[in-house]
Amino acid sequence: MKRQKQNAAILLIHCPDQKGIVIAVTEFIFKNGGNILQLDQHVDAEQKVFFMRVAWDLSDFLIERDKLAEYFNTLVASRFEMRFRLHFADQRLRMALFVSQLPHCFYDILARYEAQEWQVDIPLVISNHDRMRPVAERLGIDFHHFPIDAQNKADQEAQQLALLREQRIDFIVLARYMQILSEAFIHAYPERIINIHHSFLPAFPGARPYHSAYRRGVKIIGATSHYVTAELDAGPIIEQDVTRVTHEDAVDDLVRKGRDLEKVVLARAVWHHLNHTVLVYDNRSIVFE
Amino acid sequence: MKRQKQNAAILLIHCPDQKGIVIAVTEFIFKNGGNILQLDQHVDAEQKVFFMRVAWDLSDFLIERDKLAEYFNTLVASRFEMRFRLHFADQRLRMALFVSQLPHCFYDILARYEAQEWQVDIPLVISNHDRMRPVAERLGIDFHHFPIDAQNKADQEAQQLALLREQRIDFIVLARYMQILSEAFIHAYPERIINIHHSFLPAFPGARPYHSAYRRGVKIIGATSHYVTAELDAGPIIEQDVTRVTHEDAVDDLVRKGRDLEKVVLARAVWHHLNHTVLVYDNRSIVFE
Amino acid sequence: MKRQKQNAAILLIHCPDQKGIVIAVTEFIFKNGGNILQLDQHVDAEQKVFFMRVAWDLSDFLIERDKLAEYFNTLVASRFEMRFRLHFADQRLRMALFVSQLPHCFYDILARYEAQEWQVDIPLVISNHDRMRPVAERLGIDFHHFPIDAQNKADQEAQQLALLREQRIDFIVLARYMQILSEAFIHAYPERIINIHHSFLPAFPGARPYHSAYRRGVKIIGATSHYVTAELDAGPIIEQDVTRVTHEDAVDDLVRKGRDLEKVVLARAVWHHLNHTVLVYDNRSIVFE
Amino acid sequence: MKRQKQNAAILLIHCPDQKGIVIAVTEFIFKNGGNILQLDQHVDAEQKVFFMRVAWDLSDFLIERDKLAEYFNTLVASRFEMRFRLHFADQRLRMALFVSQLPHCFYDILARYEAQEWQVDIPLVISNHDRMRPVAERLGIDFHHFPIDAQNKADQEAQQLALLREQRIDFIVLARYMQILSEAFIHAYPERIINIHHSFLPAFPGARPYHSAYRRGVKIIGATSHYVTAELDAGPIIEQDVTRVTHEDAVDDLVRKGRDLEKVVLARAVWHHLNHTVLVYDNRSIVFE
Repeated sequence: MKRQKQNAAILLIHCPDQKGIVIAVTEFIFKNGGNILQLDQHVDAEQKVFFMRVAWDLSDFLIERDKLAEYFNTLVASRFEMRFRLHFADQRLRMALFVSQLPHCFYDILARYEAQEWQVDIPLVISNHDRMRPVAERLGIDFHHFPIDAQNKADQEAQQLALLREQRIDFIVLARYMQILSEAFIHAYPERIINIHHSFLPAFPGARPYHSAYRRGVKIIGATSHYVTAELDAGPIIEQDVTRVTHEDAVDDLVRKGRDLEKVVLARAVWHHLNHTVLVYDNRSIVFE
Repeated sequence: MKRQKQNAAILLIHCPDQKGIVIAVTEFIFKNGGNILQLDQHVDAEQKVFFMRVAWDLSDFLIERDKLAEYFNTLVASRFEMRFRLHFADQRLRMALFVSQLPHCFYDILARYEAQEWQVDIPLVISNHDRMRPVAERLGIDFHHFPIDAQNKADQEAQQLALLREQRIDFIVLARYMQILSEAFIHAYPERIINIHHSFLPAFPGARPYHSAYRRGVKIIGATSHYVTAELDAGPIIEQDVTRVTHEDAVDDLVRKGRDLEKVVLARAVWHHLNHTVLVYDNRSIVFE
Repeated sequence: MKRQKQNAAILLIHCPDQKGIVIAVTEFIFKNGGNILQLDQHVDAEQKVFFMRVAWDLSDFLIERDKLAEYFNTLVASRFEMRFRLHFADQRLRMALFVSQLPHCFYDILARYEAQEWQVDIPLVISNHDRMRPVAERLGIDFHHFPIDAQNKADQEAQQLALLREQRIDFIVLARYMQILSEAFIHAYPERIINIHHSFLPAFPGARPYHSAYRRGVKIIGATSHYVTAELDAGPIIEQDVTRVTHEDAVDDLVRKGRDLEKVVLARAVWHHLNHTVLVYDNRSIVFE
Repeated sequence: MKRQKQNAAILLIHCPDQKGIVIAVTEFIFKNGGNILQLDQHVDAEQKVFFMRVAWDLSDFLIERDKLAEYFNTLVASRFEMRFRLHFADQRLRMALFVSQLPHCFYDILARYEAQEWQVDIPLVISNHDRMRPVAERLGIDFHHFPIDAQNKADQEAQQLALLREQRIDFIVLARYMQILSEAFIHAYPERIINIHHSFLPAFPGARPYHSAYRRGVKIIGATSHYVTAELDAGPIIEQDVTRVTHEDAVDDLVRKGRDLEKVVLARAVWHHLNHTVLVYDNRSIVFE
């Protein structure tokens, strides 16, 4: 279980592998009154990189939250050339939801939101169509319609970014959003834009993967959730899943079976992001599950 | 693909196995101008029972819809001691949705309804709590609150049955409905009440299966959708699915992972029911997939 | 269950879709004293092609085995422009096994052979290395060593083909055979050479797919069994399966986990071939499961 | 990846949860010159028990192997009421293989042995039938035939135990061994006898689970590998897996599909045991995967 109790810190670390990293980190926590709740560690033997996720109880911790990153950086991280991210378990993230016309992932996320499955705020929905407005608004979520064409794209994205900044959005979920984001947009939210692609990547990237899967005669279809990078459908994979199909399944059946996969795979990826279990290195994700 | 074009008949048949059944049925269809769209057949070699699902285009069919069952009975079924069910692909079924307080399956079905994934009408929701009323009503579905206790149960069920009859309900879906239905109630809708149980049956029937799964230390959890019969969680299984868990998953994690399983497994079972692909014999289901 | 009783015929058919095919085929069987054991049918709605697999008991059948194909062709197939294959359930197929140095699929198939899991004869093993000779010979299977290099390839393949013909080989299984077969060789056994590729095709065709899977950071790996065609790893897929991996799995772990997948997926494909459940059309396989 | 380089120590620990355990263990390793290769930790929040698996490089470690357990016990374990097991990665375990007449798991394990997939020695096979003798002997493994009936069982088990002791057997694998071991026998190898049961436990314990699965009409079958305890099929589960079945699958098909599951699930469990990734507590297994 990666969901930590409220008053806890979570550190995600990577650095060149060497002796003494685990002891240095655990000592920092222990000597300052922290109780380790969970520790996962991984060494990529080929690239000689060390990865760690550690969570500890802050109840009796001596260093205050707003000094923690600085102290850790000075006392530990700098010695090991670490890159790290620090999160607090009780801090609710703010998600922006992007949708087009296909509603299944959108409905699914809103249902989880309404049922409070996740610890998240969704202050706004952005869409290139107006169709989902009532679904967002009946839950009190602001809905912003940004029609996009070749001419207005740069402009519309700039306005979207302004809105996201204004709303202090932490990360973006593309719930079958049918627009390709520009590199500029993507760079504003590195490793913070989660997409769902309706194939088992790297098979069938790009448009109409169910049609391609049908034509190739695969016996299993999949869905892939990944962080968006500049190269289309090539970002670090967070989660994948598959389901069996047969010759009896027409393209429509693949679409139908795929919908349920997409919902579940995207939701798992969002859950991982919300619980700070994902580290990205060299375009691959370490998911401390 | 089992979804037939609109103007089609679907026959589900079983009878003692003998020579000549396939030819008799296909001749009946062909000689009267029908074009077979799909034919699935299965022989249970042990019990010597023949099963069949056949769908055919009615565009040029000579026998009218309201005479079809009678003609088939006289000309074919009676010769082979067949039991059969006749459906028309363009006839929308009417579903009643029963829910308690856990909303995930309920939300999921309503989202499919709203997105028109299924060809179904949902005229009413019945619940032993009032909590889900706004969710039903915002989609224009009547919500009926029937609080149930040991004293009023027979009475409340009688009123529910009256309501279901009045609304010409074809089948009932228990979307995590936390009441055990009486035998009388079940007998009013034989093979037409679909339940979702949150375990891989027959493991962990009854209450709190995730707790039992945790204590037993299983490495995989499941969900099972079945038709309700008098014996608890022992009805014919329509669909099951599973997901892996580890020692890191606390009961709460099993509940979380299980929710997504339950949604998907229940939805698949409802889809099968709506498309008339399920035959029940000897408490086992034949699902012509 | 697709394994038929001994004295049975199995027909695999495809033709342009039209009215009356099912009735024509079933009438042919019934009028001549056959009892249908199993009938599967499928219409590709997009391409308007009809597919069928039908098996019937020959005990009281009026037409003799060696006339059956001719009669069926004259009386039924020619009317519908059918292409068909006729098999007899009691006829043991003769398999040639090709192997290089990786032994897991090879051992697995020989274990099934020794345990008589399959109704098959394996008169010979062909390898480009001599390493597996004792494993074949201890089961009394002839082992033929054909070292292959750029110079001798055409020659060696010609000798292999002569040997296969002499031994009346029905089909070939490439149990991780590390040579690319020439087009000429492939054309001698159309839809009768079964390969296992160690990835979830069409992802990662060609060499070193586990390395590619590792670099791409997929969360699931797969194996694919397909009939060999001239285009590498692009033949009709018979069976696929997958297994989950994590960031903790190094390439060696993918290889280890993949081995078990490969064994099982290849064995399922061979089983389908032996039981005449596979039809190929337009580079896609119809597997009547 | 849990397979450690040759010169490494592996500690498996559990104790009541409290502050400072991770730091105490890692300090012990670090201060004495060890480099941590892998560290996994888990806290059972309900039972308040701490679990850990840690592996470290011994190349520059100051404490000698034969003193290591004593030092760790004195300096760390005793302070935390730890129970621990110490292994060395380069120490080959000695496995005894028990088999009856069903050969698939037996063949599979011997194939892995012959291909050197595992780092293990198999000095002997024990069977209540003589049938598998040539299969063992052709690999140079001693085969011991112990026919068992109600009268001679205690006696035969005593002789088996003597043989196992004489051969310094570390653990036993029951590869579909069709005898129930006595409690006395089991107590001689606690958490060191691995069984494969051909169902998804706890569903269908005991005899003929495929028949029971067929009768219940499940849509998925499974296999379970567990450590043997006195209660039949109720020991701690190491690994499980499942596969889909349909109404078309007769009992024979379940047996056939199940065979491949059994092989793979048993092999994974043995692999975990060989790599010291399994801890048992309260009849549940912690598998540090």
